[in-house]
Amino acid sequence: MNIEPIAIIEGCYPEKFGIPRQARLVTSAEAEIRLIPPYQSKDFLDGLENYSHIWLIFGFHQNEWQGDAKVRPQRLGGNQKMGVLATRSPYRPNGLGLSAVKIASIDYENAVITVAGHDLVNGTPIYDIKPYIPFTDSIEDAKSLFANEAPGKYEVNIHASAQMAFNLLDEKAKDLIQSVIAQNPLPSYHQDYDRIYGVAILDLNVRFKRNHNGFEILEIHRNF
Amino acid sequence: MNIEPIAIIEGCYPEKFGIPRQARLVTSAEAEIRLIPPYQSKDFLDGLENYSHIWLIFGFHQNEWQGDAKVRPQRLGGNQKMGVLATRSPYRPNGLGLSAVKIASIDYENAVITVAGHDLVNGTPIYDIKPYIPFTDSIEDAKSLFANEAPGKYEVNIHASAQMAFNLLDEKAKDLIQSVIAQNPLPSYHQDYDRIYGVAILDLNVRFKRNHNGFEILEIHRNF
Repeated sequence: MNIEPIAIIEGCYPEKFGIPRQARLVTSAEAEIRLIPPYQSKDFLDGLENYSHIWLIFGFHQNEWQGDAKVRPQRLGGNQKMGVLATRSPYRPNGLGLSAVKIASIDYENAVITVAGHDLVNGTPIYDIKPYIPFTDSIEDAKSLFANEAPGKYEVNIHASAQMAFNLLDEKAKDLIQSVIAQNPLPSYHQDYDRIYGVAILDLNVRFKRNHNGFEILEIHRNF
Repeated sequence: MNIEPIAIIEGCYPEKFGIPRQARLVTSAEAEIRLIPPYQSKDFLDGLENYSHIWLIFGFHQNEWQGDAKVRPQRLGGNQKMGVLATRSPYRPNGLGLSAVKIASIDYENAVITVAGHDLVNGTPIYDIKPYIPFTDSIEDAKSLFANEAPGKYEVNIHASAQMAFNLLDEKAKDLIQSVIAQNPLPSYHQDYDRIYGVAILDLNVRFKRNHNGFEILEIHRNF
C-alpha cells in the first residue's frame, strides 16, 4: 500500500540525538504540524477543538530498518534483546511511529496545529492525525511489566562558563534545554564522564558533560 | 512510502456491518492476528508477554476514501459534518486505522496473537503491532467534548422463533451475538422499526429487528 504525508512537523529538535524517548516526557517541547497540499485546508481539521490531545501516525524517516526481528531497547539498558513488535523501537517493519501529543493551539486558516510534548525530529512526515478519545484510548487496567513509569530525571547544572549565555535565553528555551538533558539523552552503552557531548535544540548547539550528580552544561552557541 | 502487511486478522466479523465502532466495546470479540512471511517468526514477538494490550495500526481495506475533507460521524447522529482528521472515520487519507486490543494469548511457535475486544473485519491487513505502554499512552487528563463515554447499550431479546437455535450455541457465541446487537449496529439514518436486518457474526447469519425497547433476534442460520 502506498501512503503519502499529509503534514510535516516543524519543531525544536533539528536532530535525532536528544529527542525524548516517548511523547510528553518534555512538555515544553513545542512543534507545528503543518498540513500540506492537498490537505492544507481548515476543512480537514474542523472540530478538532473538541479534543485536548491527538494521535500522530508518522514515519521514522531517519531510521532504516535492516530486517532485524530483534532489537535492544534503551529502557532495558541496551543489553537485552526483544522482538521488535514488543517494543516501540524506531527501527521496525514499515517504519511507522505513534505518539500522543497535547494540542496547544489550532490555526485553522493556515491548517497548522501547534502541539506540546512531542518527540519527533524536524521534518518528520505525518501520515495520519486522529483525535485522542479517552474512553477508548486510555486503558485504565492496561499493564506492563517494565517501562511502567516515566524514566527518572537527572540533575542539570549550568557551568559558570555557560551561565551568561544561558541567562540570555528566553524562559521557554531555558526550560526546554534543561528538560531535554534531564532525560539523559546518552545511549545506555555510552555514558562517558570525560567526553563532551553536543545536542541541537531549537537553533542552539548545547554542549554538556555527564558528571556524578547528573549533567553539566558547558557551552551554548547559536547555529547560523 | 510503500508499506506492506506484517499480519492478517482472522476474527469473528466476516463483514463490516455490525462491527463495534471502537475497540474493546465488545470484549467477547476474539480474533487471531497471524504474522505473515517474512515476519512469521516468534523472534518478532519475543517479550510481548510483558504487556496486557497492544496497538494495531491497520488498513481500512474495505473503505476507499473519496477525497472528502469532511465526514458525518455516527457518534454525532450522522447529521453534523466534521473534518476527517478530527474523527476516527474509516474513510480518511491513507486509510490507516488505530485500535488498542487486549492480548488473550500468544502462540509464539506459530507467530499468532489472540486478542479480545477487537473491531476489525476478517482479513484486515495489519501494518504494525506495538505494545500499549500505560505511562505514555494512557493520558489521564485527556479531554473530549463528545464521544466521551462508551455508547449506551440496547436491550436485546430473543424472539420465540429463534430461541431453540440460540440455545444450541455455545456461551461465547451467545454473548458475542447479544453484545454486537446491543451496540445498535444500524446507521443513525436508518433505524427502521419495520425492517428485518441481517448481521454476519462468526459463521452465523443473525436476523433481527429494531423495536421500542431495543432489538429482537428473529432468526439464526449457519452459513455453509
